[in-house]
Amino acid sequence: MLKELVLKNRSYRRFCEEVKINRDTLVELIDLARNTASSVNFQVLKYKLVNDENENKKVFNNLAWAGLLKEWKGPEEGERPSAYIIILCDTSISSSKPIDVGIVAQTILLGATEIGLGGCMFGSIKREQLAADFDIDLNRYSIELVIALGKPKENVKLVDLPENGSTAYYRDENCVHYVPKRLLDDIII
Amino acid sequence: MLKELVLKNRSYRRFCEEVKINRDTLVELIDLARNTASSVNFQVLKYKLVNDENENKKVFNNLAWAGLLKEWKGPEEGERPSAYIIILCDTSISSSKPIDVGIVAQTILLGATEIGLGGCMFGSIKREQLAADFDIDLNRYSIELVIALGKPKENVKLVDLPENGSTAYYRDENCVHYVPKRLLDDIII
Repeated sequence: MLKELVLKNRSYRRFCEEVKINRDTLVELIDLARNTASSVNFQVLKYKLVNDENENKKVFNNLAWAGLLKEWKGPEEGERPSAYIIILCDTSISSSKPIDVGIVAQTILLGATEIGLGGCMFGSIKREQLAADFDIDLNRYSIELVIALGKPKENVKLVDLPENGSTAYYRDENCVHYVPKRLLDDIII
Repeated sequence: MLKELVLKNRSYRRFCEEVKINRDTLVELIDLARNTASSVNFQVLKYKLVNDENENKKVFNNLAWAGLLKEWKGPEEGERPSAYIIILCDTSISSSKPIDVGIVAQTILLGATEIGLGGCMFGSIKREQLAADFDIDLNRYSIELVIALGKPKENVKLVDLPENGSTAYYRDENCVHYVPKRLLDDIII
């Protein structure tokens, strides 16, 4: 049932890095994305797949991890993602369509969740360095989003907003990650 | 399986209008959206639910239908959507996050597909008129997207791109709606 998948699909930032993700799996996820709706059906999005140890390191170094956890610099070695999908807009087709990016990113992560994987979306990216590292021509492509993927190794819990109304996620001493969500009554107007 | 749902979830523009959608169903779809990832977990999106006959008409009149089908002015009476979800950004929380809009819109439509409904996303909206019709304060809210929902009454087929490479969707004489999709080899770089 979709609801179970949506609830299980959390933003995971620590992984069992020893569990590898092969290219065929990434291609299947892109095939899901390929079959989604797209603005005016332009299909401006293209994908760079990364699952090689050395290339993984390069992507890792170009991402800003969990902006709200000031003390945490990102996952340690051994807990890092096993693969990445770099989502590009091919501007030779049309300009950036961020809603399309959300559509495919969510679809990819739901697909990953269904097969026991999980991940996180990154919009905070060192774009010029990432482009240089992967020979991405920024005259043609814009880097829209990076999805990190792996086998999740953390407990993420949805909770109601605290009394002060803060939506900031936080961790307890056992590294359980809490994500406050607004209630239905607060989001239906 | 998610893939079946993704394939079944097409952009539908003709519906069995006599099949009503009650408010509880819309609320369940919003509850799916509520539990998705959100940029910095701000959760800027809010929702206006519409399933009343008169209000449906108002939304309908503010949407541009199928820009690529020049001869077609949108569905006739009897084939129009039974409900709409107007997605708003509450700018008192933070600025517009279009990737979040894609995430929730895709999730809502996958949820609708799972229960035998279907729909279409609209970015081309007469925003000022829609805001006036529904007393939406544009100083606080921006209108991000409208999702039309109903029981689909059309056959939508995915096909490969034609030789000229056009991604434009089209209909045949039986009103079957064809949507050309790029191949995997064309979107993985």
